[in-house]
Amino acid sequence: MTNTKIKVAVLGATGLVGQRFVRILADHPWFEIAALTASARSAGKTYGAAVSWALGGDVPRAAAEMDILPTSAKRLAETGIQVAFSALPAATAHGIEEELRDAGLAVFSNANAHRMDADVPILIPEVNDGHLELARGQAKRRGGSGFIVANSNCTASGLVLALKPFEPFGIRTVIATSYQAISGAGRRGLAAFDIAANVVPYIGNEEEKLARESRKILGRLAGEAIEPAPFEFNASCARVPVRDGHLLSLAIELERDIEPDAAREALASFRGAPQELRLPTAPEAPVLVRREEDRPQPSLDVEAGSPERAKGMAVTVGRIRRSGRFLNLFALVHNTIRGAAGTSVLNAELAVRRGLIPHEGGPGRTKETRP
Amino acid sequence: MTNTKIKVAVLGATGLVGQRFVRILADHPWFEIAALTASARSAGKTYGAAVSWALGGDVPRAAAEMDILPTSAKRLAETGIQVAFSALPAATAHGIEEELRDAGLAVFSNANAHRMDADVPILIPEVNDGHLELARGQAKRRGGSGFIVANSNCTASGLVLALKPFEPFGIRTVIATSYQAISGAGRRGLAAFDIAANVVPYIGNEEEKLARESRKILGRLAGEAIEPAPFEFNASCARVPVRDGHLLSLAIELERDIEPDAAREALASFRGAPQELRLPTAPEAPVLVRREEDRPQPSLDVEAGSPERAKGMAVTVGRIRRSGRFLNLFALVHNTIRGAAGTSVLNAELAVRRGLIPHEGGPGRTKETRP
Amino acid sequence: MTNTKIKVAVLGATGLVGQRFVRILADHPWFEIAALTASARSAGKTYGAAVSWALGGDVPRAAAEMDILPTSAKRLAETGIQVAFSALPAATAHGIEEELRDAGLAVFSNANAHRMDADVPILIPEVNDGHLELARGQAKRRGGSGFIVANSNCTASGLVLALKPFEPFGIRTVIATSYQAISGAGRRGLAAFDIAANVVPYIGNEEEKLARESRKILGRLAGEAIEPAPFEFNASCARVPVRDGHLLSLAIELERDIEPDAAREALASFRGAPQELRLPTAPEAPVLVRREEDRPQPSLDVEAGSPERAKGMAVTVGRIRRSGRFLNLFALVHNTIRGAAGTSVLNAELAVRRGLIPHEGGPGRTKETRP
Amino acid sequence: MTNTKIKVAVLGATGLVGQRFVRILADHPWFEIAALTASARSAGKTYGAAVSWALGGDVPRAAAEMDILPTSAKRLAETGIQVAFSALPAATAHGIEEELRDAGLAVFSNANAHRMDADVPILIPEVNDGHLELARGQAKRRGGSGFIVANSNCTASGLVLALKPFEPFGIRTVIATSYQAISGAGRRGLAAFDIAANVVPYIGNEEEKLARESRKILGRLAGEAIEPAPFEFNASCARVPVRDGHLLSLAIELERDIEPDAAREALASFRGAPQELRLPTAPEAPVLVRREEDRPQPSLDVEAGSPERAKGMAVTVGRIRRSGRFLNLFALVHNTIRGAAGTSVLNAELAVRRGLIPHEGGPGRTKETRP
Repeated sequence: MTNTKIKVAVLGATGLVGQRFVRILADHPWFEIAALTASARSAGKTYGAAVSWALGGDVPRAAAEMDILPTSAKRLAETGIQVAFSALPAATAHGIEEELRDAGLAVFSNANAHRMDADVPILIPEVNDGHLELARGQAKRRGGSGFIVANSNCTASGLVLALKPFEPFGIRTVIATSYQAISGAGRRGLAAFDIAANVVPYIGNEEEKLARESRKILGRLAGEAIEPAPFEFNASCARVPVRDGHLLSLAIELERDIEPDAAREALASFRGAPQELRLPTAPEAPVLVRREEDRPQPSLDVEAGSPERAKGMAVTVGRIRRSGRFLNLFALVHNTIRGAAGTSVLNAELAVRRGLIPHEGGPGRTKETRP
Repeated sequence: MTNTKIKVAVLGATGLVGQRFVRILADHPWFEIAALTASARSAGKTYGAAVSWALGGDVPRAAAEMDILPTSAKRLAETGIQVAFSALPAATAHGIEEELRDAGLAVFSNANAHRMDADVPILIPEVNDGHLELARGQAKRRGGSGFIVANSNCTASGLVLALKPFEPFGIRTVIATSYQAISGAGRRGLAAFDIAANVVPYIGNEEEKLARESRKILGRLAGEAIEPAPFEFNASCARVPVRDGHLLSLAIELERDIEPDAAREALASFRGAPQELRLPTAPEAPVLVRREEDRPQPSLDVEAGSPERAKGMAVTVGRIRRSGRFLNLFALVHNTIRGAAGTSVLNAELAVRRGLIPHEGGPGRTKETRP
Repeated sequence: MTNTKIKVAVLGATGLVGQRFVRILADHPWFEIAALTASARSAGKTYGAAVSWALGGDVPRAAAEMDILPTSAKRLAETGIQVAFSALPAATAHGIEEELRDAGLAVFSNANAHRMDADVPILIPEVNDGHLELARGQAKRRGGSGFIVANSNCTASGLVLALKPFEPFGIRTVIATSYQAISGAGRRGLAAFDIAANVVPYIGNEEEKLARESRKILGRLAGEAIEPAPFEFNASCARVPVRDGHLLSLAIELERDIEPDAAREALASFRGAPQELRLPTAPEAPVLVRREEDRPQPSLDVEAGSPERAKGMAVTVGRIRRSGRFLNLFALVHNTIRGAAGTSVLNAELAVRRGLIPHEGGPGRTKETRP
Repeated sequence: MTNTKIKVAVLGATGLVGQRFVRILADHPWFEIAALTASARSAGKTYGAAVSWALGGDVPRAAAEMDILPTSAKRLAETGIQVAFSALPAATAHGIEEELRDAGLAVFSNANAHRMDADVPILIPEVNDGHLELARGQAKRRGGSGFIVANSNCTASGLVLALKPFEPFGIRTVIATSYQAISGAGRRGLAAFDIAANVVPYIGNEEEKLARESRKILGRLAGEAIEPAPFEFNASCARVPVRDGHLLSLAIELERDIEPDAAREALASFRGAPQELRLPTAPEAPVLVRREEDRPQPSLDVEAGSPERAKGMAVTVGRIRRSGRFLNLFALVHNTIRGAAGTSVLNAELAVRRGLIPHEGGPGRTKETRP
């Protein structure tokens, strides 16, 4: 079966999101890590020696023994990879992601660099799988097979999964207030002294990104462009001393009011393309609804999602209630899994199934994924 | 000067708010602690032996050596006190506060028991000093000198101080989302396991209290009743792993839009009766405006307020910005000082100045408070 | 296969250790939960309704639907259980554990009640499996099949697993200093305000228990009594704001000095009866040695142990170094798994294998456990 | 009085220790800040604009408006300063501190750069005020007035203050285990993700520094060299999620055993040169003894010390007990005040009083410090 696996690279593999990619891909049924890149500082080391592993336990064995490559399109070309998962910082991502696309690779990027490019979809496959067509256009227009697919800002992924089920009721206004985990700032992005037993009510550009990206994701594909969704969006973002898990408080004004029970039903029954296609990393249900009065909580719900491979891929929603003209709820997303590496892998799985990544045999053959 | 001080009791003196009362009153220019009460468990002990002091350093010396009394109106009558500060739990507060009022005492209560009584004001003296007249009516109607004045829920105090300066612009809608500190649940109200590196998006009845109390405080005194302020209010409250300091994210819709600079000016220039009357516990400015992009923060701003005696009495506001039809900001309040004991003492100071508490000499005589 | 499973009860099933028992036993190959007990407050509820589930995700389904029983020997007798796992507080445990023993049950107790009884072993099966013979004596002397086996204080379990491999070198002195997690105080045993961003250098009776229990566990079975190990022991225990995982700093003086490499080898190669017998909950290696300069860490290592069923059953040791006449190291133990419920279940597995718990078919039959 | 103040500079004024210097010196009776330096990044800005103020409230006004200078001996010479307080990182400190000494300045350094120089004392004035003579020798030998005085590693300061009172009993062995605060790693020295709800049992070189420095501080001045104290020292250092305050657990073996009460008495009655000389930043008592069973705690005791100016200058000791041949206790030190800037200022005060820093009028004149 190894023969039929698609060779992939993880770019920026030593950071927190890079580590998540490595773990998720370590025993993936379709993909096989063939290259790991990091900054010059790590060059010449094995991944095991270069990484300061932050996910608990041990570095996956095969990855630990791989040599770190520099993040260079030329070097990656020699490895025979077809797919690149990018956990690069935006500045680095810009050029290299384009070069890899030009070299015919499918690039699934967690970086901010190309998200707002007109022909790059921000893909959350349960929400806007149709936007993948933008990537097909990208490849075609460039006369090759390469394309870039972005996933969203970590907070936006939870936001749009919690909002999508309400689309039929007409989303008019969303007021979002966040409680965001430390890991959202990257492994060393936040000084311990600044957040210990504290709340920092500011995350650079986060509110703007949330607005822009959620409107694009929930937007309408019109020809080769996306028309942003027109709802009013008001965001306030804060950092809290939690390791993983972005919690959102949403006040949603709909065109057609619905009662809490109907809202719960809409969320709990929500399914998308990954569920229909039984993609390997898809959770059974992308949104879980809890009825306890005090959930979701990061410490209890951040790893929600089944089966085992989809842990951290489900958004948990609770405290659904009506107050005045608003429907209120709290939603929790694992910011480095569903909000980053996990969705990026799910995007790649969708692209494989939709035929955007050519490969021998095809994953349809493997027993694990046969419907 | 001791002769001219007004004798006061602190009811429920061993809890967190009780301890704040003891510290604030330890060297108060007008008041002198003459009695400390606690539950039966502490009977027969000195305060120093009974209390598990949680405010750092040592128990104020004079208080440490006092004998704890049971929380009984009869026993308190023997002590010659004129004023009772109540940090009792609601269930205990109900009867005893009424008995003390009937015995002619001025009761300043942090408890929830009488806040919604029609003739009991919820007093935040910078916001609604006029409501103190309700207390005068209370005493009169009962043919005595006793009355109950409540202060608000700890979160509401910060909320109304941040909203009051916008009243001239017409408050239409307020969406409030909170990040509340552990101490708001009382000394033992929250299990460490439940909040460590976590957020709990639920605080029992808090959202309802916030709505009810803020509308009453910002309401209009019409004859002997208060007409609640009519704005739409939508609250979502969560607990975060911070020791002291409730942070609020507010999205405010006004009748007449104002720009952030005008909003800053309205907040920074706001003053009330305590400032005009130079009450001992009044902060120079009840609202401080910060211009840094990442303030207010509990760890940096919770003790805001000058002079020294007014530490923790100023609400800090920051990140003032416009987004769509909303004015957004973050506000921080010290929940056991401005949100509890501090405001209660300030209320008593106002009542003294307004002549509701008779006393020899009068505090107007003391040098410290002469304008 | 269900027919051949041994019916067990979990006493005190709603607390943190009780919940660990429920999770570990939920899909155990030999045992099957037939009764769950809790205090009167929970009577008449299902376990799912009574428990405030604190381990993340959902209550195991079968347990969730069971009715809570009162903790009564009489009621338990009606359920046909053979084994009782006790997560009761010491005061409650005392009488009921004896009654269950008298009724012929095998009682595996996490409580403090009987640990120092002369004929009750404190069993950590990798360390002192021979002490199980005390339990055989207990049953025999009472003319029945019932007995009580205790597991140790949560910190002691990590301590003795880290010390046992050094026994051949002669343990002369141990200075132990601890960094203990919140969960060691039970679900509601520690107030959040007291430990937030703090260290509390006191845990009631912990230092005494550590001394007493570790000397008994490492003691020599001489006839029907245990001669405590004679090393000097000096303990200082503190609570830190960590959810799970007790970390210990040990300075060990040995009769025969060994170098760090030899110490690592002694620890890493250490195996005991559970490994030889391939008990279902046994970790492959009871002690894991890490060579990174900054491990073990609670957030990275607390769940150490493989296979999946043995997560949290391995003690992780690191920073092994010599300084003067001492060998120094840090050791980490999951306090509610290896330090409580997990070892208790492992003890029961050992007792089954050693023939102390009669049962049809016997677990030796099941495929999973055949050597 | 301003005319008689001694002009001082703070080098590296934007870091955490630099900020502590600025706050302590803001209203110092003898010293006046005349220069603030920082790295090139801050050049051309005012201190208020350059610093990310982390101590709460506002930057002291006068400092806020000062222009940042580069850390250059030449530029500092133009400012007329006599004293330099250095909060520089070791690498930067090395050269510049020597240059300033050569230029005739008194340098009080918190850096690690010169601590182990034979003629540089590590001065904790309650412990080894006699070592200041080394500085006199330094100046003399170089034919000028300049010298460098170091203060110790932040943890060592608490350690030696807790040990010194036991010197008369003969200190044979000290086993020290630490719980160190985040601020000890500097403002950005520790990533939030690494320490959130975690313990990291490693601090680079800390154990070695502790051994070396505590032996030097407690050593004997023999001619122009210090003979290190000969006790056996065994250290294990760990980082805990606390903002400020290093807690130490000590097991001390003495030549002559003493009972806990005698130990308490020795600690509580301990005084040194700063107390005798009534230096402005000296605490009334350098060691406070607490009798509660669970103190000292960082959140309650870190700011111990009176009067107001000496907050954070007292070490708090508690849980004094005997176990076997060891005396055990916990000691807490404010790592950036007593462990850094505060002691450095106290050292300068001692040097002024001992005549090492020439000045007009002399501080002996000021009323505040007259015995």
